Amino acid sequence: MGPHPAVAAIRLAVRRVLHDILTDQTPPTPHERPPSPLVLVACSGGADSMALASALAFEAPRLGVRAGGVTVDHQLQAGSGARAEEVVQRLRDLGLDPVESVRVTVGRSGGPEAAARDARYAALDAAAVRHGAAAVLLGHTRDDQAETVLLGLARGSGIRSLSGMAAVSGAGGRYRRPFLQLDRQTARRACMAQSLPVWDDPHNSDPAYTRSRLRHEGLPALEKALGKGVVEALARTAQLSRDDADALDTWARQAEETVRDAAGLLECAKLRALPPAVRRRVLRRAAIEAGAPAGSLFARHIEEVDRLITAWRGQGAINLPGRVVARRQGGRLVIRQG
Amino acid sequence: MGPHPAVAAIRLAVRRVLHDILTDQTPPTPHERPPSPLVLVACSGGADSMALASALAFEAPRLGVRAGGVTVDHQLQAGSGARAEEVVQRLRDLGLDPVESVRVTVGRSGGPEAAARDARYAALDAAAVRHGAAAVLLGHTRDDQAETVLLGLARGSGIRSLSGMAAVSGAGGRYRRPFLQLDRQTARRACMAQSLPVWDDPHNSDPAYTRSRLRHEGLPALEKALGKGVVEALARTAQLSRDDADALDTWARQAEETVRDAAGLLECAKLRALPPAVRRRVLRRAAIEAGAPAGSLFARHIEEVDRLITAWRGQGAINLPGRVVARRQGGRLVIRQG
Repeated sequence: MGPHPAVAAIRLAVRRVLHDILTDQTPPTPHERPPSPLVLVACSGGADSMALASALAFEAPRLGVRAGGVTVDHQLQAGSGARAEEVVQRLRDLGLDPVESVRVTVGRSGGPEAAARDARYAALDAAAVRHGAAAVLLGHTRDDQAETVLLGLARGSGIRSLSGMAAVSGAGGRYRRPFLQLDRQTARRACMAQSLPVWDDPHNSDPAYTRSRLRHEGLPALEKALGKGVVEALARTAQLSRDDADALDTWARQAEETVRDAAGLLECAKLRALPPAVRRRVLRRAAIEAGAPAGSLFARHIEEVDRLITAWRGQGAINLPGRVVARRQGGRLVIRQG
Repeated sequence: MGPHPAVAAIRLAVRRVLHDILTDQTPPTPHERPPSPLVLVACSGGADSMALASALAFEAPRLGVRAGGVTVDHQLQAGSGARAEEVVQRLRDLGLDPVESVRVTVGRSGGPEAAARDARYAALDAAAVRHGAAAVLLGHTRDDQAETVLLGLARGSGIRSLSGMAAVSGAGGRYRRPFLQLDRQTARRACMAQSLPVWDDPHNSDPAYTRSRLRHEGLPALEKALGKGVVEALARTAQLSRDDADALDTWARQAEETVRDAAGLLECAKLRALPPAVRRRVLRRAAIEAGAPAGSLFARHIEEVDRLITAWRGQGAINLPGRVVARRQGGRLVIRQG
């Protein structure tokens, strides 16, 4: 008798990603013994990442991969240190080695969720380097992806913000998300089927957090209105948007080279001939290159600069974040820090 | 004292669109008297389209435009004929001329909402032709746009379905939506400020309709989770997605010509070199050209065909809707009706 279907599903997802990781490894020179790569799982102790850890512990030895784990203690709740130690023990019980708990101090920059995320990834990056890990697996599911798409939608800043989380991301493709096509329910069932103890983070149901409100109220209401396929549709939208945004970025990079004059200035007539979607990306790239911080540069800024091209009636200079100024001068668009 | 701010807002929106319509008119030859174009408003008697009718009645004479109105009797509710006559009278009271009520029979194809929409646009098209109208104004607001984006999101079929309704659409750009940047509340306030009687379509609050569930439950829950800016963010997403989808369609059209061999067959190696977003659009175009009905061709179909290019391992022919078959033969992709 084979494993429970949910367990089979999580293992298959991890096996595929381990195969990808092995394929991406630099091939050893002849006569050299192939190194055994280390793959870490980032584990909060919740159902998603415990399921991931269990699947990694099962699959890794079969593929000649060493499997370890890291849990991050955000120090945001009383007793978080003891809980982190408990997660470490559970990961050891699964047979992972090395396993460690990393304590971080969460700042305030960008709000509580962003600050916790920044601290977490910095700690995971450091752990990966410290252990020489080939990859770090993250337990994000299709449900997390759907929530991320809706959060991006609320920004209204275009398809890049709809593209959610990538299956492969970070420096050198360090982070991998094997469960991005898998629903949260499957991860939970896999834990139950394997009698794995899981810990429910109270933050996940705290209505002070946007993501939590989305999970417990926004998304269920959308499903009620639009039908049960919403989560899957959102996850598919993420993938399609990501590919579309990548293609348009490529186009904008190529177009940027063709719209500059000999002095390197942007020619308004040539910009005007580009499709609006490409032109706006060229303008955004130019503003960032001139020193505007990408995170503060909104669609409305770029639209205003765009009107210097498409609706020119002698308007003055446009102020952009980072003391960057865009102005039209003699048929050229000049964007520089003022 | 100027008009109420809501009335000023609806008039400004209509004035801009009338200017566009006048600019788009074929200029008369010298010595010829410029014709006075006719613009029709499609009016259900609800707040949005009554506000639109009132703004058209005010602005049109000032711009030398004739203003008329059409109301469509869908015959879906008892007394709909009498109500249509009442709307006709209200439009006449605003000074519109010609005004008519058109009775349609709603089929069942595609569900109740799609069938009603198809019947309505067919009737409006016919009315526009009959009266020689230069344009037909539609009262869709930013809130309608936000709902349309969410409906598209639920299909999960990519950014074209996120691009909502166009400000200009239909044969020769016949349909114009002056209120696409305006919220529903403004239209309602403008009606109140002008003491215009409005009629609330019971379908708009009938939970049997997806759009109605979205309006009364889904969108408010999303706003509660994500904040009040959601409607605006969704409307902006529509515009950005539309421009992006247009640019990628242009790219795919151009790419299609470069990936065919002398015999007109698609070369797999050249397809493979395209960005995934462009390649999938080329494949979709080829499938539709071969006879696959666009409405039945889903992202998953195209993904399967794409794997003939990107993950070739000798797999067999792929069946697509409309008895279209895609197969790989000698480095060429052959898509034809089988």
